[in-house]
Amino acid sequence: MIYLNGEDIIKSITLDECMDAVEDAYRMYDNNEYNMPDRLQVENDDLTSLYMPCFTKASFGTKILTVAPNNAKLNKPVIDGVMLVNDINTGEVVCMMDGKTLTAIRTGAVGGVGVRHTTRKDVKSVGLIGTGVQGFYQIIYTCKARNIESVYLYNRTKEKAISLKKELEKRLKGINIHIAQSSRELVKNSEIIITATTSYKPVIEDDKELLKGKHIIAIGSYKPDMRELPDSLLEIVDTVVIDTDFAKQESGDLCIPIQKGLIKSDEIKNMGAFLKEYNNIDFTEKTTLYKSVGMGLFDMVVANKIYKNSIEKKIGQHIEL
Amino acid sequence: MIYLNGEDIIKSITLDECMDAVEDAYRMYDNNEYNMPDRLQVENDDLTSLYMPCFTKASFGTKILTVAPNNAKLNKPVIDGVMLVNDINTGEVVCMMDGKTLTAIRTGAVGGVGVRHTTRKDVKSVGLIGTGVQGFYQIIYTCKARNIESVYLYNRTKEKAISLKKELEKRLKGINIHIAQSSRELVKNSEIIITATTSYKPVIEDDKELLKGKHIIAIGSYKPDMRELPDSLLEIVDTVVIDTDFAKQESGDLCIPIQKGLIKSDEIKNMGAFLKEYNNIDFTEKTTLYKSVGMGLFDMVVANKIYKNSIEKKIGQHIEL
Repeated sequence: MIYLNGEDIIKSITLDECMDAVEDAYRMYDNNEYNMPDRLQVENDDLTSLYMPCFTKASFGTKILTVAPNNAKLNKPVIDGVMLVNDINTGEVVCMMDGKTLTAIRTGAVGGVGVRHTTRKDVKSVGLIGTGVQGFYQIIYTCKARNIESVYLYNRTKEKAISLKKELEKRLKGINIHIAQSSRELVKNSEIIITATTSYKPVIEDDKELLKGKHIIAIGSYKPDMRELPDSLLEIVDTVVIDTDFAKQESGDLCIPIQKGLIKSDEIKNMGAFLKEYNNIDFTEKTTLYKSVGMGLFDMVVANKIYKNSIEKKIGQHIEL
Repeated sequence: MIYLNGEDIIKSITLDECMDAVEDAYRMYDNNEYNMPDRLQVENDDLTSLYMPCFTKASFGTKILTVAPNNAKLNKPVIDGVMLVNDINTGEVVCMMDGKTLTAIRTGAVGGVGVRHTTRKDVKSVGLIGTGVQGFYQIIYTCKARNIESVYLYNRTKEKAISLKKELEKRLKGINIHIAQSSRELVKNSEIIITATTSYKPVIEDDKELLKGKHIIAIGSYKPDMRELPDSLLEIVDTVVIDTDFAKQESGDLCIPIQKGLIKSDEIKNMGAFLKEYNNIDFTEKTTLYKSVGMGLFDMVVANKIYKNSIEKKIGQHIEL
């Protein structure tokens, strides 16, 4: 068995390979070539443990996450966990990897795939609202998918935006990184706007003129009462693409506008089908929304690619069974 | 994080420590000091994956098993898996260990605790019906709990009994190990009879005279239609002790006799309560039955003891996170 820590994972897969793996997952989703049972969630005092098994034709595994809110006080990650990769034929665990890093890069790559397929090819600017743990890789993957010249960061707690700016500057040479003073300023300056918050009310101003022609990548809201996006976006949007069918029910960014009649459910396209049917669209002057809530199939397909690459590249710690 | 393979596990815990840990688990069960959600079972083609999370006051973890019937052809174990041990406060995975070895020794120790508390102290003989993967440790723990002089083995496929005899002879010096030609011969010669089969019909003859004064340890049947024990045992038995309340519904060895009116449900005692209330009973001339179906709490408490000991004894492979 091989163990891959965060560094090993990063070394094992390129940004493009990771986005390609997410696109593979989308194709499997569209072709129904997966088995992803309901996740098991168990709670005990302040701890929550989540089990997310997934099978594809080529792979089988489980992401296991723990959520420990008290860890924040200890300067430890609130969400921690591991991904187990099993042999699809024998069931044996062949690889275990850090769940935090896997989640961060696959969520970044899911955003990146949205950028690849729902934004104008010549965009030069991206803004990120919410500079928490997912923010770093959202920007990294966006900058890989498009020739970005300017990045704008906004967070209610300004220090967090400043700290992410420093982190990004180490990695992104030749790209200007700015701190925006308001969400409005950020949206005004950015062609792509990524929302990655845990907000329960819109983090973008409800202003059609401001939003016209923008490409929104929303990854925050994953519950029916969580919302990042204002009503007016759904009124003017030309194309809405989601990662999974259940996003329509699970995310307040979709279920509330559908309920209000601002958008019809059947106008919303699934990325798997979208990739097949609508490739190479010119999004000039189009307003687009890509909404992701995530699913275990992304973890499984990306983890399997990481595992296969780690074998080839001889990366990771070997464990004697 | 530490990884413990089968050898590491064996080195980390003594037989008595393992039985003591099972008794700790029984006390926690009786005091309701645990949180053991329903296990998650997922199936895909021929593979089954089982997730068994469990929390105690001191520990938290998950046993994950895979069942791959086709592995038999490949000479690989049909049931494989791992146990994850997490920090009860932060949720971090602190230890991963081989699930096969953990299951084998804790099941042996659960049997051993039955021997400790539901058999005469001066028994000298034990018989094992069903010499599969669980058999080895059933005998090892029985021989630790009592001063056994003679072991009898019976299996429908005689070669399997012969092969277990050889294995046991390497470990048990000064104890006579015999192959019984029939289940009847085995029961006749043994004071303790352990049944560890996957049978759907009784593996012991339905003969009251044969069964009088015997101590039965039954670990095979875990489904309502699986049965190892004959009706007459339940008619003459003086004491019935089970590991968990749900054994009465889950095991055909109990639910069928209860349905037939051979024994009343409230005559069956739970080992947790039994340990508290009925210690040091003289079982001379008494017929007893101890029935176990197993539970995740055993795995958790035993795994936590193994993990703690491995730290003290510096056993296992360290994994850089």
